[in-house]
Amino acid sequence: MMKIGLLGHGTIGVGVDRIIKKREDMEVKKILSLVIDDEMEGRTAADLSEITMDPEIDTVVEVMGGIHPAFEYIKEAMEQKKNVVTANKAVVAACYDELIALAEKNGVFLRCTAAVGGSIPWLVNIERARRVSDIFEVGGIMNGTTNFILHKMLTEQAEFDVVLKEAQDLGYAEKDPSADIDGDDIRRKVLISANTAFDVSIPEEAIPTFGIRTVRLKDVSWGVSNGLTLKLKACAVKNADGQIEKAFVEPVFLKSGDILSAIPANYNLVYYTGSYCGTQSFIGEGAGRFPTAHNVVEDLIDILETPETFYTVKRERKVPENHVKRLYYVRTVAEDRWLLETAHEEAEGVYCLEAYVDEIHLWAKQMKEKDPGFFMAALE
Amino acid sequence: MMKIGLLGHGTIGVGVDRIIKKREDMEVKKILSLVIDDEMEGRTAADLSEITMDPEIDTVVEVMGGIHPAFEYIKEAMEQKKNVVTANKAVVAACYDELIALAEKNGVFLRCTAAVGGSIPWLVNIERARRVSDIFEVGGIMNGTTNFILHKMLTEQAEFDVVLKEAQDLGYAEKDPSADIDGDDIRRKVLISANTAFDVSIPEEAIPTFGIRTVRLKDVSWGVSNGLTLKLKACAVKNADGQIEKAFVEPVFLKSGDILSAIPANYNLVYYTGSYCGTQSFIGEGAGRFPTAHNVVEDLIDILETPETFYTVKRERKVPENHVKRLYYVRTVAEDRWLLETAHEEAEGVYCLEAYVDEIHLWAKQMKEKDPGFFMAALE
Repeated sequence: MMKIGLLGHGTIGVGVDRIIKKREDMEVKKILSLVIDDEMEGRTAADLSEITMDPEIDTVVEVMGGIHPAFEYIKEAMEQKKNVVTANKAVVAACYDELIALAEKNGVFLRCTAAVGGSIPWLVNIERARRVSDIFEVGGIMNGTTNFILHKMLTEQAEFDVVLKEAQDLGYAEKDPSADIDGDDIRRKVLISANTAFDVSIPEEAIPTFGIRTVRLKDVSWGVSNGLTLKLKACAVKNADGQIEKAFVEPVFLKSGDILSAIPANYNLVYYTGSYCGTQSFIGEGAGRFPTAHNVVEDLIDILETPETFYTVKRERKVPENHVKRLYYVRTVAEDRWLLETAHEEAEGVYCLEAYVDEIHLWAKQMKEKDPGFFMAALE
Repeated sequence: MMKIGLLGHGTIGVGVDRIIKKREDMEVKKILSLVIDDEMEGRTAADLSEITMDPEIDTVVEVMGGIHPAFEYIKEAMEQKKNVVTANKAVVAACYDELIALAEKNGVFLRCTAAVGGSIPWLVNIERARRVSDIFEVGGIMNGTTNFILHKMLTEQAEFDVVLKEAQDLGYAEKDPSADIDGDDIRRKVLISANTAFDVSIPEEAIPTFGIRTVRLKDVSWGVSNGLTLKLKACAVKNADGQIEKAFVEPVFLKSGDILSAIPANYNLVYYTGSYCGTQSFIGEGAGRFPTAHNVVEDLIDILETPETFYTVKRERKVPENHVKRLYYVRTVAEDRWLLETAHEEAEGVYCLEAYVDEIHLWAKQMKEKDPGFFMAALE
């Protein structure tokens, strides 16, 4: 019988707790939560040490979110020889090397399947496929909030701020939506996916990221009039030498026949491509109480049944090159010499141009200072 | 080091052999094949006993296809205490109970991941998800050949026999395409999927099946003019009492926004729906040398690493009820009183009606005798 200490009793934590209550192979013994509720039934821990110093508890589930104090709590749990399962992509992406080193040093498990793709059995399938095929590409639509927003803008011809408000009212977007709409959440997910698929460790700041904060209905409509659907997509590619040729997050205009363009509402589509297995795509809800909690419990069962500490072993530090050319759509009211020299003006303030990924993301940062409404998207 | 006896050295067999040649944890020691080729390099077995009586060989990979003599060969291998991995859906569907009983009696493994979905990690993910969620629905586009045909008919406005010929020339369809176009192949796949997901044993003849042998361009075009895409789809549903409420194979007209309608060429989309995990969909190539061989080798590694004999344990015998109403499109030149009484005539010889699945499939068999060109498809 696995005895669990649960850190966090919010949306995911309650889901995990309810699933485990119906099982006979595991039990939530203590819960640390800022807010106490009835479902905690006398299992409230006064502080972290009540969990980490309990010799009966062998596994800690961290579903608090955020980097601090989640990292310190996980660290303390592992130093007290507890296995750790987390659904927290922020802490895994930011403290990737430290967390894995702690797990190895203390001989405990670290699993985070629910951190990427919510309900999708994603990292575990990458781990499986790597046993046979060399995985050289990962990517997809990795954030349900932004996909919900872009899907609604398209189907209801609604403006960004109206749809964002609706997403917040429905609980699909947070009060401060920055991590979603600025692409930080996706950057963390593609980082963890690429690290797992390529057995590397990519620094978070080395992944150029452009979100959808400045997208407007006219951008979505420009796509429609050209037979294209706008999505926020991530990708990472390893080349034959084992270098990370590409790893970035940006809005893309996709051809309407593309399966990615058909992914609705808060769903995710994630894919990997490998030497023998070809491209495998997975579609499921990217968030939500029980879908995410399902994968947390899968991780717990894996700890009971399988012997690996983490998904990968070597984890060489690698920085993406991103020196590859792509076609871009750019909308800006700012004047810029480079833009006038290289781009073709499609309509007033709308330009199409070819550019290197690494260069255009640096340039986009400067442009955003000149024009806060600056928007760009790749054309695939 | 796993020592393997390989039965069959065709498309899949050669793929398996080439992948294993690059590995250090397994080796193909002997190969039984009707045709001898250079790649077999002195590993040719003169007959089955050279493999089954070899005490060094612990595992037999069967990629011959067909029910006989594949069943007898697998049986002999298991009785000689060899584990068996097969990509052969015909033999697994037809001899499901016998094969599992043989595996259990002899204490050997039986795995068949490549039998359903080709490259997709399908049965293994059902097996995993069942550890946490109750799976109550499986289905999807499970046959690449028929999807290739329907996709081509749609995109090139081409007639069925022209596209079938093209599929045969490209190697996507066999010389005798019956198993694909009559839906037998899909019936076997949905049977194995449902058996694995619901832990039951469904008799193959209890799954009503209508294929696309009689589909014509005018049917596809009727869909287009109504905003619908025609696909050949399977589904199976377990109800709250554990009975199999539905399990059938039939053409369906899907709304254009449906992800299934966007699945191109020879790809498959398979999905399961579970109590906590929601709907999880998987897209990949449904056939092909290396994609399929990838999953055969995954099964071999699972035998090296995990302890389960098969995907399920109980396997109660269950017959689908199929007494559920659906909307249907029917095209026929035959006269029929029931049709005139119940259907709405859309155009000359084209009818729409509501009917029970079990009843309309029985009726369709009679109608095919009166009108060999009879075609029907559900409207979803």
